[in-house]
Amino acid sequence: MGKRGFLVVLSGPSGVGKNTLLNAVLPTVEGLKYSVSATTRPPRPGEVHGRDYFFVSDEEFDAMLERGELLEWAEFVGRRYGTPRRYVDQCLAQGLTVILDIDIQGAAQVRAAMPEAVLVFLLPPSLEELRRRIYGRGKDPEAAIVKRLSAAKHELAAVTDYDYVIVNDDLAKARDELRAIILAERCRVSRSDYPSLIARLNQEGTNR
Amino acid sequence: MGKRGFLVVLSGPSGVGKNTLLNAVLPTVEGLKYSVSATTRPPRPGEVHGRDYFFVSDEEFDAMLERGELLEWAEFVGRRYGTPRRYVDQCLAQGLTVILDIDIQGAAQVRAAMPEAVLVFLLPPSLEELRRRIYGRGKDPEAAIVKRLSAAKHELAAVTDYDYVIVNDDLAKARDELRAIILAERCRVSRSDYPSLIARLNQEGTNR
Repeated sequence: MGKRGFLVVLSGPSGVGKNTLLNAVLPTVEGLKYSVSATTRPPRPGEVHGRDYFFVSDEEFDAMLERGELLEWAEFVGRRYGTPRRYVDQCLAQGLTVILDIDIQGAAQVRAAMPEAVLVFLLPPSLEELRRRIYGRGKDPEAAIVKRLSAAKHELAAVTDYDYVIVNDDLAKARDELRAIILAERCRVSRSDYPSLIARLNQEGTNR
Repeated sequence: MGKRGFLVVLSGPSGVGKNTLLNAVLPTVEGLKYSVSATTRPPRPGEVHGRDYFFVSDEEFDAMLERGELLEWAEFVGRRYGTPRRYVDQCLAQGLTVILDIDIQGAAQVRAAMPEAVLVFLLPPSLEELRRRIYGRGKDPEAAIVKRLSAAKHELAAVTDYDYVIVNDDLAKARDELRAIILAERCRVSRSDYPSLIARLNQEGTNR
């Protein structure tokens, strides 16, 4: 089609279920690609390099930054996370939709660099439920949990800069809504190849 | 939920398949209501008063206008069409989404009165296909057909004022896209009861 794709950013407090939602929605939308982030945090059990994250050292992250290879990056609970630019650019050039799981700092950078990006915030059904998820993970020390909770409250205040909000009280509903947002955004007049289509229609009209 | 609903306007050249699309999408979206228009044109075979249109005389239409009962109205091929205001208001107050099948003149009036309305334009896959549909109906005199064709070209130029465009080359795809637009718009931060939700979450946080 030759039309450039666009970015979808999914943010939300740690533990709100972004990963589960992404895994649910990716198989349901044609032409939707997940951009794997680079991070300096160590892998959790079961996480795979290149699938969940590109796990890199602090020195490697510095080098990526220096070479301008990151579209956005942010520090969260003492670890750095960033989006490698090349994969995103390749996908967008092919007209694909690229979805990023990044935090509010990264989202702000994406919005500044690409105003046409679509920002979606995933909200917990209640703060109690969010706490249950944060504590229930049981893989991190107490200090990290407290930090995550404080960060979550900070994040919630940033939602007004987003385009859409999904309340994650039901996975099937949340998946349906995220899918709908992507399909709808593809139909936006501002993204459509409508002007060229109209020109073609008018030409057809005069050729007869 | 106490949240006010919103309007969705569906426009498109005569014969593009708006009715078929509406009938396909209405059963698939909860809380979506179709607003039946009033018109001074005579019923076509099979059309039912109160389901397809409220068929009224010119005098009745004048009286509705005089009493301010129409949310929008327009003249098309010598006949008048309008949206009775009361049903729409009742639905919106109940938080429902109301979909209107109205032309570009009416859509401009809706946008002016309700800037938060969502405007969707249904586009034929090609002008040839549009012509086939217009001629194929075979129920109207030649003059009406020529008028409709000219109006269609005029309408196409108005699409830049719309939010979304759907190309009706496949009914299932078009239905999926219109449904997605409605679900997505319900998730807009600007429409959400997010501020009250955040206030509630923060209150929960301090209550512990």
